[in-house]
Amino acid sequence: MSLEFTLTTVEQMEADTARLKETAEKVGIDVWQDRVKNQTPHCGFGEKGICCRICAMGPCRITPKAPKGICGADAHAIAGRNYLRMAAGGGATHSDHGRECAWKLVDSSADGYYHVTDAGKLIQLAKEWGVETEGRDIYDIAHDVGRMCVNEYGKAEGYQLWTKRATEERQKVWMEQGLTPRAVDREVVTAMHMTHMGNTADPEYLVRQALRVGLADGWGGSMTGTQMSDILYGTPVPHDTESNLGVLDKEMVNVVVHGHDPAVSEMIIRYAEDPEMIKKARAVGAKGINVVGLCCTGNEMMMRHNVKMAGNFLQQENVLLTGVVEALCVDVQCIFPNVGPVSECFHTKFYTTSPIARIPFATHLELTSFNAGEIASQILNEAIDNFKNRDESKIFIPDHKHSSWAGYSCEGIKGRLDTVTNSHLDELDTYKPLIECVKSGVLRGAVAMVGCNNPKVRPDYSHIEMMKKLLANDIVIVATGCAAQAAGKAGLLDKRAKIFCGQGLRRVCTLADIPPVLHMGSCVDISRMMNLVCDIAKDWGINTTQLPVVGCAPEWMSEKAVSIANYVVATGIDTYLGIDPLVGGSDKMMHLITEGTKEWVGAGYVIDTNPDTLVDKIIEGIEAKRAALGI
Amino acid sequence: MSLEFTLTTVEQMEADTARLKETAEKVGIDVWQDRVKNQTPHCGFGEKGICCRICAMGPCRITPKAPKGICGADAHAIAGRNYLRMAAGGGATHSDHGRECAWKLVDSSADGYYHVTDAGKLIQLAKEWGVETEGRDIYDIAHDVGRMCVNEYGKAEGYQLWTKRATEERQKVWMEQGLTPRAVDREVVTAMHMTHMGNTADPEYLVRQALRVGLADGWGGSMTGTQMSDILYGTPVPHDTESNLGVLDKEMVNVVVHGHDPAVSEMIIRYAEDPEMIKKARAVGAKGINVVGLCCTGNEMMMRHNVKMAGNFLQQENVLLTGVVEALCVDVQCIFPNVGPVSECFHTKFYTTSPIARIPFATHLELTSFNAGEIASQILNEAIDNFKNRDESKIFIPDHKHSSWAGYSCEGIKGRLDTVTNSHLDELDTYKPLIECVKSGVLRGAVAMVGCNNPKVRPDYSHIEMMKKLLANDIVIVATGCAAQAAGKAGLLDKRAKIFCGQGLRRVCTLADIPPVLHMGSCVDISRMMNLVCDIAKDWGINTTQLPVVGCAPEWMSEKAVSIANYVVATGIDTYLGIDPLVGGSDKMMHLITEGTKEWVGAGYVIDTNPDTLVDKIIEGIEAKRAALGI
Repeated sequence: MSLEFTLTTVEQMEADTARLKETAEKVGIDVWQDRVKNQTPHCGFGEKGICCRICAMGPCRITPKAPKGICGADAHAIAGRNYLRMAAGGGATHSDHGRECAWKLVDSSADGYYHVTDAGKLIQLAKEWGVETEGRDIYDIAHDVGRMCVNEYGKAEGYQLWTKRATEERQKVWMEQGLTPRAVDREVVTAMHMTHMGNTADPEYLVRQALRVGLADGWGGSMTGTQMSDILYGTPVPHDTESNLGVLDKEMVNVVVHGHDPAVSEMIIRYAEDPEMIKKARAVGAKGINVVGLCCTGNEMMMRHNVKMAGNFLQQENVLLTGVVEALCVDVQCIFPNVGPVSECFHTKFYTTSPIARIPFATHLELTSFNAGEIASQILNEAIDNFKNRDESKIFIPDHKHSSWAGYSCEGIKGRLDTVTNSHLDELDTYKPLIECVKSGVLRGAVAMVGCNNPKVRPDYSHIEMMKKLLANDIVIVATGCAAQAAGKAGLLDKRAKIFCGQGLRRVCTLADIPPVLHMGSCVDISRMMNLVCDIAKDWGINTTQLPVVGCAPEWMSEKAVSIANYVVATGIDTYLGIDPLVGGSDKMMHLITEGTKEWVGAGYVIDTNPDTLVDKIIEGIEAKRAALGI
Repeated sequence: MSLEFTLTTVEQMEADTARLKETAEKVGIDVWQDRVKNQTPHCGFGEKGICCRICAMGPCRITPKAPKGICGADAHAIAGRNYLRMAAGGGATHSDHGRECAWKLVDSSADGYYHVTDAGKLIQLAKEWGVETEGRDIYDIAHDVGRMCVNEYGKAEGYQLWTKRATEERQKVWMEQGLTPRAVDREVVTAMHMTHMGNTADPEYLVRQALRVGLADGWGGSMTGTQMSDILYGTPVPHDTESNLGVLDKEMVNVVVHGHDPAVSEMIIRYAEDPEMIKKARAVGAKGINVVGLCCTGNEMMMRHNVKMAGNFLQQENVLLTGVVEALCVDVQCIFPNVGPVSECFHTKFYTTSPIARIPFATHLELTSFNAGEIASQILNEAIDNFKNRDESKIFIPDHKHSSWAGYSCEGIKGRLDTVTNSHLDELDTYKPLIECVKSGVLRGAVAMVGCNNPKVRPDYSHIEMMKKLLANDIVIVATGCAAQAAGKAGLLDKRAKIFCGQGLRRVCTLADIPPVLHMGSCVDISRMMNLVCDIAKDWGINTTQLPVVGCAPEWMSEKAVSIANYVVATGIDTYLGIDPLVGGSDKMMHLITEGTKEWVGAGYVIDTNPDTLVDKIIEGIEAKRAALGI
């Protein structure tokens, strides 16, 4: 292992982006950098959350001279309603993805496109939920469990089953505070109803419902997404792959999968590995088929397969601008509508596959459980045929890429910990070795680094620079989503990146043979982190609120992030935000989301748009938790 | 019947409002007129639907120089997403009200607070849905039917049961177009997911989902609200009461009920009629207890009881400014947050009763199926105690009020038609006599006049002046919501108002002994209108799209109105809007909602913010339908 290992800097990534932007200019298409310029400065009313468009009497805007909207709603009611609607939009979106995964399990069969891959996980869940397993066909069990999951979205009574996995303390707090989530869809509808014209105007109750709709996501819909995907496609285990634009291969047929729900990309991988398909690719002069991922579909593929990761959210246009993408296949969420027009400037074929995400300029091939293979096959065949249509004059592939370890599911992490179990800790399959490291101070704590990119801050800078400082302070990082991809692009998912760690964390990385940033998956996989913190709290014998663990979304942009932030806080974990949550026009709302939630669930937000000071606050927060524990 | 009958003019109502505004100035509180002044002009981006606040990269605004948001969404995607979110907000809100009604039926019992009042309607529905009725206790049937309704909100598979009541043609169109609504909550969540950052950007699919989420409301949640309320509280039949601010009585303890869900106000009426309660009121020097209604809770009370109607949406502050309101009790929706501060300027006690509508300055008494009577009793007792606290110097009650006939449910209308059945039409309980009148041209057609008030147009002017012109043209009006209340305030629910009708309609009014504007109930009761048009189409043997019937919302403001407009259009009825639906920044969206929907469902919007020309377009539209039928 060489000490000459270096990270790719943000400046280097920016240079790649600048070079690709030249191609955009050449082909005459706008990219996000142009649009940011056009859209800046943003409307201050919107940024502060004090623009109300909830009824057609307005829009209304709060100013010192106009302190109320036409109905009488003040800044607190307006900002609160907007905030809850963001959480509801995010919760609905995340959770609906989970529902699709559950339906795939309902539709799974030995001879169909969707199979049970992790039978052990399915049986464990069946037992947890009281589904008969003895002597039954695995697909009968799968169908029962899948239907139970689907039912969690709409059941008329009762609470989310997954919440039983939380610590007893959390379950008690949620019940006492009226936050235990009912049916997933119902919490979204309640949020929409509460925020309708003429309903809740007291921000306290809007923030409470934001926590609840968040919990319906994190301990409902998202957890369904993660667990169903593991059962269907396999629970991730650690393995090595590569990240950044350099994974695109000029000699190969490049197929980019993008979005969040792995249902279509799983099929594309499967068919791309078919020797017949590879033969076809070779027949058109390519060396083979290179399926690469973008955004969370990329993360899903990277966690379970050797699929390389081409980039995160703000890199989606860059990928197309390389000029070597034969096909872009998207499922749902975070897809720039502009990938349509960008594709049109190249030979790239652009496919949509979900009724939820219909985008102009796409060929729409709607995926079902029963045509998935045909669609994947069609896309790959058309991509291969398209290889010949490249325009050499438009091709440029940046060469940056890094070895990236992924696959650190809870099971994956425990698997690594089992290898370092000491003689005095003979228990396997626990977090106790990790807890001992934290107790002893070898590790100071952990940060769950999650979220998107957002041009409001320098893209990837916050992710990468904050991670580096945390690592140097012996704080281990678990990451998902665009944050994990930023780490991958920089090189922080490379095991050699331990050289950037403090002495304690470096030793842990060496002993457990892990990179210092553990890639836990996609955005729905933040549900893995919730299981992780609750199980650590159980193994440690303390509450989640006492753990020297925080969440951080330094570059978030999506409503899903608002939903996530709410469930992370409700799970008792302080959450550090690097982007303002659009409620700055209401001091009551700012107080409620930072301090108010602490009274109910023992955690809250810390907001600072400067990553350099935000990271210091995280370290202080972790040290304060340690001090309170007397460690 | 005297010919000297005159209507109350909009000018007279405005004079009352101006006089009450003087009181507001005296007590130092703002009213909507002040806030409109402060909020005008509105933000043009919001009004045109081209401001996007769906992710935290923005807000983004479309201008000629900035034709795309940061993600690349154009004006069509942004306006379309905003429009679908309005429909989703409205559909969620309406439908959630219906769910609460269904739960009351689940919780009903002979000795509880909620009873089965219309057992015949319950049994009819039970038979329709295959619930066993023979030899069963009515409450066992009620609980089964109630649970079926509740289940319609979240069932994992299948379509809304109520849609089976539509014409076969409609059911076929909906199925072919992919519009048949699944579970109510699911359609809302699908809409939220589709509009999330990075999903649907093609406006066609956003408009299609708006129709579907609308149908989940009109042929799902709202229909549940209407039908459950009829079973619980009685199906309305025609009777006389009074409307406008003059119904407040200085000699009485005045209790105002406001909102939409009748669950709490039904209890207040019941307890207010208790001789013991009346005795208490007399003991404090009052002549009795005067429960009056505002907005749709007022409509619900007016439809089923002799409760007087104090006003519609923009009159809610006026009612308090009379200085004689001892208690204001609200449930959900359309409640100005400003009623809190206004109440504080008077002796008025302000109560909230729903977890969905928590409003500052209120005493919160949360209603359940099992404490409803206690809450009603507490509110009435406190109102009576509060009678002595009036400040004489602040009292002014405008004296305008009119006799108002209400209670024209479908059953109520058919009951009237039965009285005019001719010898050659010996069938009872049909719309055939009405159809004959339309065929013969005695009536030219019908307008469903619905919706809110909106200060963007002169309040109530559109409702009243358009109705007058339609009546003069022999077009009968069925009305709900604030539109029906505007008619009541003006005097158009008075049977004597037939003098303003053309000769044909006047004769029909005389023969059937009806007012020319038929009050069909609250906003959820637009579901009655859907049953009405479908049953008329069946009795006539033509499609709903062929009927000389249109919908009109000349002063709408709420997201519910967007949901309603969508299901009315999807039911095949052209809908005339007097307020712009906030998509003017996208020509594609404007085309889709006016013309595009016609290709899918045979109906669309006609938009004109000038009521004088809008009404002419309605008449033209009705005459064109007649011409197409050859009548």
